[in-house]
Order: sequence, then structure tokens, then C-alpha cells
Amino acid sequence: MRTDAELAAQVMQRIDALAEISEVPGGLTRTYGSPSMHRANEAVSGWMREAGMTTRVDAIGNLCGRYEGAKGATQTFLLGSHLDTVRDAGRFDGALGVITAIACVQCFAENGRRLPFAIEILAFADEEGVRFHSTYLGSRALCGVIGEADLQRTDRDGVCLEEAIRKFGGDPAALKTCRRDPSELLGYAEVHIEQGPVLQDQQRALGVVWAIAGQTRLEASFAGRAAHAGTTPMGLREDALVAAARFIRDAQLIARQHPGLVVTVGQIEAHPGASNVIPGFVKLSVDVRHPEDAVRCDACELLAVTAAFGAAHERVELGWNIIQATRSITCSPELTALLTESIGEGKATISLCSGAGHDAATLAAITPVVMLFVRCKDGISHHCDESVHESDVEAAIRVMGDFLQRVAQRHA
Amino acid sequence: MRTDAELAAQVMQRIDALAEISEVPGGLTRTYGSPSMHRANEAVSGWMREAGMTTRVDAIGNLCGRYEGAKGATQTFLLGSHLDTVRDAGRFDGALGVITAIACVQCFAENGRRLPFAIEILAFADEEGVRFHSTYLGSRALCGVIGEADLQRTDRDGVCLEEAIRKFGGDPAALKTCRRDPSELLGYAEVHIEQGPVLQDQQRALGVVWAIAGQTRLEASFAGRAAHAGTTPMGLREDALVAAARFIRDAQLIARQHPGLVVTVGQIEAHPGASNVIPGFVKLSVDVRHPEDAVRCDACELLAVTAAFGAAHERVELGWNIIQATRSITCSPELTALLTESIGEGKATISLCSGAGHDAATLAAITPVVMLFVRCKDGISHHCDESVHESDVEAAIRVMGDFLQRVAQRHA
Repeated sequence: MRTDAELAAQVMQRIDALAEISEVPGGLTRTYGSPSMHRANEAVSGWMREAGMTTRVDAIGNLCGRYEGAKGATQTFLLGSHLDTVRDAGRFDGALGVITAIACVQCFAENGRRLPFAIEILAFADEEGVRFHSTYLGSRALCGVIGEADLQRTDRDGVCLEEAIRKFGGDPAALKTCRRDPSELLGYAEVHIEQGPVLQDQQRALGVVWAIAGQTRLEASFAGRAAHAGTTPMGLREDALVAAARFIRDAQLIARQHPGLVVTVGQIEAHPGASNVIPGFVKLSVDVRHPEDAVRCDACELLAVTAAFGAAHERVELGWNIIQATRSITCSPELTALLTESIGEGKATISLCSGAGHDAATLAAITPVVMLFVRCKDGISHHCDESVHESDVEAAIRVMGDFLQRVAQRHA
Repeated sequence: MRTDAELAAQVMQRIDALAEISEVPGGLTRTYGSPSMHRANEAVSGWMREAGMTTRVDAIGNLCGRYEGAKGATQTFLLGSHLDTVRDAGRFDGALGVITAIACVQCFAENGRRLPFAIEILAFADEEGVRFHSTYLGSRALCGVIGEADLQRTDRDGVCLEEAIRKFGGDPAALKTCRRDPSELLGYAEVHIEQGPVLQDQQRALGVVWAIAGQTRLEASFAGRAAHAGTTPMGLREDALVAAARFIRDAQLIARQHPGLVVTVGQIEAHPGASNVIPGFVKLSVDVRHPEDAVRCDACELLAVTAAFGAAHERVELGWNIIQATRSITCSPELTALLTESIGEGKATISLCSGAGHDAATLAAITPVVMLFVRCKDGISHHCDESVHESDVEAAIRVMGDFLQRVAQRHA
């Protein structure tokens, strides 16, 4: 029987091996339906079988490993994460959750231990949505919410999702067979790298996720009047960039006044964009996230009023368009309490809101969800410098094993 | 003998005719050495001769019309502006100064009036510097400050200035013959559209220019750290765009606190430029102008300190590079006083600082200069919507005629 330290070393080796399975040489890119996804599924299903699991691939291409429960067990607890990646990805985003889950099951199997429920590990075929610009295809299939419009989405080569599913060995006509009956499910637990700097800042290996933030994406525009930088006195300007700058600064102040709120302006364009011309038009992106939808919606209103105030003062016209809004997800209080007990580090457990989306957010529609975040170096993710300590992985394996036993006690 | 109103109507017709002489159909573009510059010189020299002047083209291609003074006159008073344009130009920028000067001389000629000095009208062949990215080639030739480095400048087709001068009918080896002896010159007066909104705002047709602003061009950069917009709390960000926004807003406030100071951020780039990524690097342009060099230099220091303060607060690194700095030019107090008397509208004359550069700024090195600004619609210039009222042109002709007579009285 392996120790948690040995299991952690094995997890790190397997994650390194998975990182070699890529569409592109010298970097990690693995998108839905690609040959590299095939090879990743093969490698991972081999490790699942070594851990005493049976494996299958569902109609959309999700790899599912099953570890049967004790005799008479009728329900299933889900573990997992995704195996697809962004372009030029890090190796831990997604893979960490799948591979640590296998290590936990391997631990039970080597101990000959059966729980009062089956464990299924889901290795989702699409979370990042790089190829079809549509996220969570894998976990959405389990919820039965992939529609005809999704199937007609095309990739950059004009291949539609329907055809891609078929080429990947799946069956677009049978997607309903991916659906899981909520009554058979006890919950879903996902281990994921934090993709942020909080755990490192707090010097903690692990954190419990209590919510996945809702998000509003906006486009703001400021229309003033382009004019000569030398001949137009300050008092006669309609400077779109000054109005935009006031907003960017004010947005930061608003975010700081509301705990948990994050507001980001990531894109900005100033026109005409000459050093000697006052900008007449500026367009920028606004990304607003908070675990509580009411706080996020109130913040968006306050941001709009603030932008309008600054624009009016600069005599420019404000445009304000909501591009997308998604609601927040609250993790299961019961499962989160059990996970918190498992961490029990002697000091208060760090409770985080995830600012990024995860498969758990989708699965919350059909079963209680819980998430464990693992510290990553400098908050770097979606980048080849993504890095996780082996000792933190060891802690995650220990905590997840303990957590599953606590769930088992509940359902004994 | 024509009235000022008739002369103004003629000026407007001639400016319309000149606007038809362009390198491109459907718009006005006339760059140094182009066939359209040849045709413009021909048209204007015809009007000069009609007004009783002799004409010549100097070694760089400036058209010079001369109206001899009274018997025994040994000195020369210069009038003029430029005939080249920016791309997709307005019709008044440059042309207005040349064509109104001809109208003034025409008025003297039709009256049989000789002044105690010769008048020369200079129609400069290059002020905008579009073709060789080097401004004031025409007026700089009169100051003898065109060097070998200038001659080796190339246009976008790889043609060097030396070759362009030759093709334009000039003589690059004889540029020193363009030089004017300061002792023979009484001064230089230039009529120009304001290219700004102040006269319109003050409901005045004309304004006297007391100085041409000095200018500092800077590039500021803010280097923070790119990070996930969802997972990085506000307190752990190193947001380069927030630091840049603080600076843009603060720069406006600093400019407003110093009368006559204008500060413009016209260009901005945020990297990586994705809506869900906190900008890790921002680069922007800063354009600072003021009639007093000491005020401009102090303002640049204050701007640098302010940028550094904001950057430090946002934990980003500031880069601050001066690209170019040019000194201000003060117009001749004596000539400006005479021009102010000529305007004498019964209310206080508007005294302006020109934020844009002009040939007068170059010629100030060899002779006292004075400038008269004519109101333009909405401050629009370098654009086909550039527009000037015929009645304002009439006022300019009247004032310039009166001004030259006042100069004549001084030198009688």
C-alpha cells in the first residue's frame, strides 16, 4: 500500500506524462475531439483500470471510471475535472482534479475498501471551450442541456460540433444518454488549482470553495470629439480617454469598497490613436464578478452611474452594453462542512469564492457540489509556468480520502 | 479697385481652386515635390504676378513673390505660409496665409501704393513634413539649417530628399542660396487658421498670437503583472491599466491647474488585451505644451512624479522616456502691438498662444515674427470639414493691410 507521499509523486509523474500529450510540439494544447484528447483518454483510462475501476466513454467523449460501492449501494458520488486545455496551457488546470481523484480511489482499492456508494470519476472532454467557443460541453452533457444550436457551432475550420462528436467516436444523436439521474447522485467533488494568488498569499496549501462567482461582461464606450492636442484648451475638450480613465479608476475604488467584488478593464482602444490628437472615441471591456448575484447586479448599476457621471463631466457620451451575465453558484453547505472538517489544519480553513468558472458550476444543476482549491505558484494559470507543489498535492489526496470517508459515514 | 469684401470673395475662390490641385482624387493631399505642388506653385505664381509681383522659386522649391518698395527701400517685410498639406487635408491650413497675403499686395498695387520696404510673399514648399517626416523644410531653408542628414531622409518609396529636391526642379547643392540675410529683413507676418476652438468660443473673427508653444513628447509605460480577472482579488493586483488611468486623470487635473498648459494622452495600448485578463503592461503617449518653457518643464517633472506616485500605489513599474522637446517661440512684442492696434475691434483683442507649430516658429530665428489667427469652425483642422467664414477672411485682409501700413509708418 502506497503512502500519500508516494501517491502524490505518482500524480505528479502522471500529470507530467499527460502534459506530453499535445496537439502542438513544445507546448500543451489539447482541444475537444483532437487526436491528443483520444490519447489522453487512453492514458487516463489505463490509470483508472489500474486503480480497480471500470471505464467507458460517453456519447460526447467524457471518460468515466467507476469504482463500485459496497454490496447494496445504489447511489454514486462523482469526482473529476476536465482533460481538455486552453492553448499553451499549464499542466495542472483540469488534469490535477482527474488524476488526484484516481489516486484517492487507488488508495481505497489497495486497502480493499468499498464505500456505501459507487465512486465515478469524470474526465470531461471539454471545459475550456477553445475549439467551439462554448464552455462546459462535457459537464453540460451530463445535465442534458446541449441543444441543436450547440451542435451547429463550428470550429475555425468550419467543422461543426455534431461532426466533431462523431469523429471523436461519440454519437450526437445519443447525447441524452449522457444525462445523469439526479436521484442516483450524492454529489460532485472537484479538486482544482486555485488559478489565483490567495492561498499563496495566506500561506495555505488548500482552500475550500464556498461559491463560484457570477459574472457580468460589459462593453463601455465613450464618444467625445477628436481635436488637435496643441490648439484645444483643456476647458474646451471632449476627451473620451479622460472619461474612460476616470471610469477605470472609479471602478477599482468601487470594487475595493465591496468585499469579494472584482472589476477588471482588460481591453481598451482609443481612436484615432495619434499622439497629437485628443481621443474622440474609446471602447473598453468591463468584467464584474461576485459570489452574490445581488451584489454583482448592484455593482453593475453603480458602475453604470459612475461611468455616466464621469462621461457627463467630460462632455462625452457613454455607451453601456451588457454582453453576457451568468449567475453565481453556491456550493453545498453540507459537503463543504465535511470538506472543511477534513482539512482541519488547526487553524481556520480558508474559504474562497472561485472567480473562474468550473465544471462544478454546471453540475450544481443536478447534484450538490463541493470544490477543493490547491495553491498554485504566483496565481499563474493558463500559462506554461503554472506550478503546484508536490506536498500540496499530497495534502489534497489526504483531504479528499478523508472527505470521502466522512461522506461514507453520513450514508452508512 | 476692389473692396475688401470683393478681395475676400476672390480669396475664397482661389482657395477652392487650390483645393482641386491634389495628388488624390476626391480629397486634398499635396506633399513636398509632388506634381500637384508644381501645379499649385504655378497657379499661385500667376496670382502673384496679377498682383504686380515678380516671382521666383528658390533652390528647395519655395515660391517667392516680390512687390518692390518705394524708391530707396533696402529692406524687406515677409508674408506667407505654406502650400503643402497633410493627407486628406482641409483647404485653409497654409493656403489661407499665402492667398490673403496676395490680396493685401494686390490692394496696394491697385492703389499704386509703394511702401518704404519691399514685400515678399513666401509660399513654403514643405511645412507639414508628410513625405519625409521632417517638418518646416521650406522655412528652415531660409534659415540655412537644412543639413546632410535631412538630405538623406527617404520617403516611403525610398526616394531621398536630395533626389526629391532635384526632381522638383531645385538644387540640393545650392540650398545655401535660400538663406536670407537677417539684416535685410524687417519681420515676418503669417495669417493662419486657428486650428482650435478658442476664437469661435469667444465669438471673435481674429486673434493675435503672442507665442508658439514649446512641446515635450513623452512615452510612459506601466509594467505590472497580468493575472486572471476572476481569481485575483483587488488587493493582490498589479494592474497596469489602473495605474495608467490614474495618470491620465491626474494629468488632466495638473493641466487644468496651470493656465495655458495642455496635456494630452492620445495613444494607449494595454497588454495582453483580453477582457478576462488584468493588463500587465500599458504604454501611452504624453504630449505637453505651454508658451513658457519653464512652466512646461516644471509640468513634465510634476507629471513624472505623479505617474510614479500612482504607479507605486498600484505596485507597477513606471517607464518614462522623453521622445522630443522643442522650445517655445515668443512673437515680436513690437509687431504684435501693431497688429493688435490694427484689429482694434472696440473690445479687448484675443491674444492666443499657438499650440500647433508654424513656419513663423522657424523664421523667428532670423527675423521678428507676428501671427494673425482666423476663426475656424469647431476648431476642426487637418480634415476635409475645415471651414472658415468669408467675412472673417475679409476682416483678416483689412487688418493685414492696416498692419502693413502701420509698419510702413514706423519705417517711413
